[in-house]
Amino acid sequence: MDIVLIGSGNTATVLGRKSLAAGHRILQVYSRSENHATRLAGSLNAKAVTSVSSIEKNADLLVIALQDEAVADFVQALGVIRSLLITHTAGALSIHEVRNAGDRYGVLYPLQSLRKEIEILPVLTLLVDGNSPSTRDQLTDFASGIAETVIQADDDTRLKYHLAATLVNNFTNHLFAVAESFCEKENISFAVLQPLMEETVLRLQHISPRAAQTGPAFRNDLRTLDKHRRLIKNDPAVSRLYEMFTKEIHKSAPAIRFKP
Amino acid sequence: MDIVLIGSGNTATVLGRKSLAAGHRILQVYSRSENHATRLAGSLNAKAVTSVSSIEKNADLLVIALQDEAVADFVQALGVIRSLLITHTAGALSIHEVRNAGDRYGVLYPLQSLRKEIEILPVLTLLVDGNSPSTRDQLTDFASGIAETVIQADDDTRLKYHLAATLVNNFTNHLFAVAESFCEKENISFAVLQPLMEETVLRLQHISPRAAQTGPAFRNDLRTLDKHRRLIKNDPAVSRLYEMFTKEIHKSAPAIRFKP
Repeated sequence: MDIVLIGSGNTATVLGRKSLAAGHRILQVYSRSENHATRLAGSLNAKAVTSVSSIEKNADLLVIALQDEAVADFVQALGVIRSLLITHTAGALSIHEVRNAGDRYGVLYPLQSLRKEIEILPVLTLLVDGNSPSTRDQLTDFASGIAETVIQADDDTRLKYHLAATLVNNFTNHLFAVAESFCEKENISFAVLQPLMEETVLRLQHISPRAAQTGPAFRNDLRTLDKHRRLIKNDPAVSRLYEMFTKEIHKSAPAIRFKP
Repeated sequence: MDIVLIGSGNTATVLGRKSLAAGHRILQVYSRSENHATRLAGSLNAKAVTSVSSIEKNADLLVIALQDEAVADFVQALGVIRSLLITHTAGALSIHEVRNAGDRYGVLYPLQSLRKEIEILPVLTLLVDGNSPSTRDQLTDFASGIAETVIQADDDTRLKYHLAATLVNNFTNHLFAVAESFCEKENISFAVLQPLMEETVLRLQHISPRAAQTGPAFRNDLRTLDKHRRLIKNDPAVSRLYEMFTKEIHKSAPAIRFKP
């Protein structure tokens, strides 16, 4: 397909690279920043454009990969282009956010944490929606070529996945950030935890996180909990998380596993 | 070395397998449960023993891989065996927990989430301590043969690593468990999140978690936060975590990144 990319951030970059690798052509990269447009367009053999009026109407697919808040304004500026299949890429925006742009529209939402800085393209899951069965099928075909997993999902389902992604990505990453700060403060190495963090995730290929839970809160090991608390009593950020998780994990542990 | 393993759980199993693979000999596996002792001993070409008096005194190394609460009782039952180098494997127990067992003692603490059910041996970091420089060096040598990373760490340092491990393993795993329950309740697939969870961790090989943070709480995207809140308003477990993390992530985000 001949694709126009709207945006020059993480999503535009990774979807652009994946599309190019799958044999599609990126005609244009649009960004209000000429610098950003030129940089991404250059790496995708595309043309950089900075004005909405220059957007190529004879493309097959236009992918709006902007911040959520910027999508409505862009669609309004774009006007109606009947020839184009138009999609946004947001987990928490309705498919109808782009309905004023044309007759065929949909969503390509990457359920993944995308970073343009990282060379290796991640294993990608795309949640797809379309305003009609044929649009949905066409987008599903396209998605199957650039993503390892493709799921058709309506607005409600996509928002649920978006929330679950927030739990396992943003919240988890926050725990890692707190642990990193703790390590720096206590002069121990955060990098040494990398294999543990990887194992915590990789074992979920084999067992459920509920079955995998261990640790002092789960065992109700009061002696260790007490030692930890003394260690962090002057660190409010760690303490708040510690108390909340200890309570929640304790609550979630099957009573039978508790030692007296 | 000729090794006696005390215990038949995750730690004993994985350290036993790693030791065998590194060319050491497992003489005995001790467990109060004959069943457990026999099963693990069988897989390690070792002899199963269920009474403390049968423990081989002519081994080189005795590894106490019991639950923290059971270590003191075991050491008392063992008595003094001067010929043996004796270690425990606990992150939150002092090295002195085993001092009554002999003249040479120490700690081999795996900073890793060990599951005996999983066939593939994980990348292992061992924190090592010994009651004298020569004991510490001998244990460091041994550890270097069975673990990918070895760090000498005293009681205080080991406890700090243990706490950091709790944050990035137990707490993270709890988030995954909550997400899994949410997915089941909402009838979406938790397994689909696996590549996202892996990417969240793997990218930390390249960037700091603080630099990697994204999401609606970080951006202060009130519209999306509101959509999420409506979705989970009848789910107290998710809501409690959601509110806490949203506040904490918001607090940790550089002011410059907020959109008005």
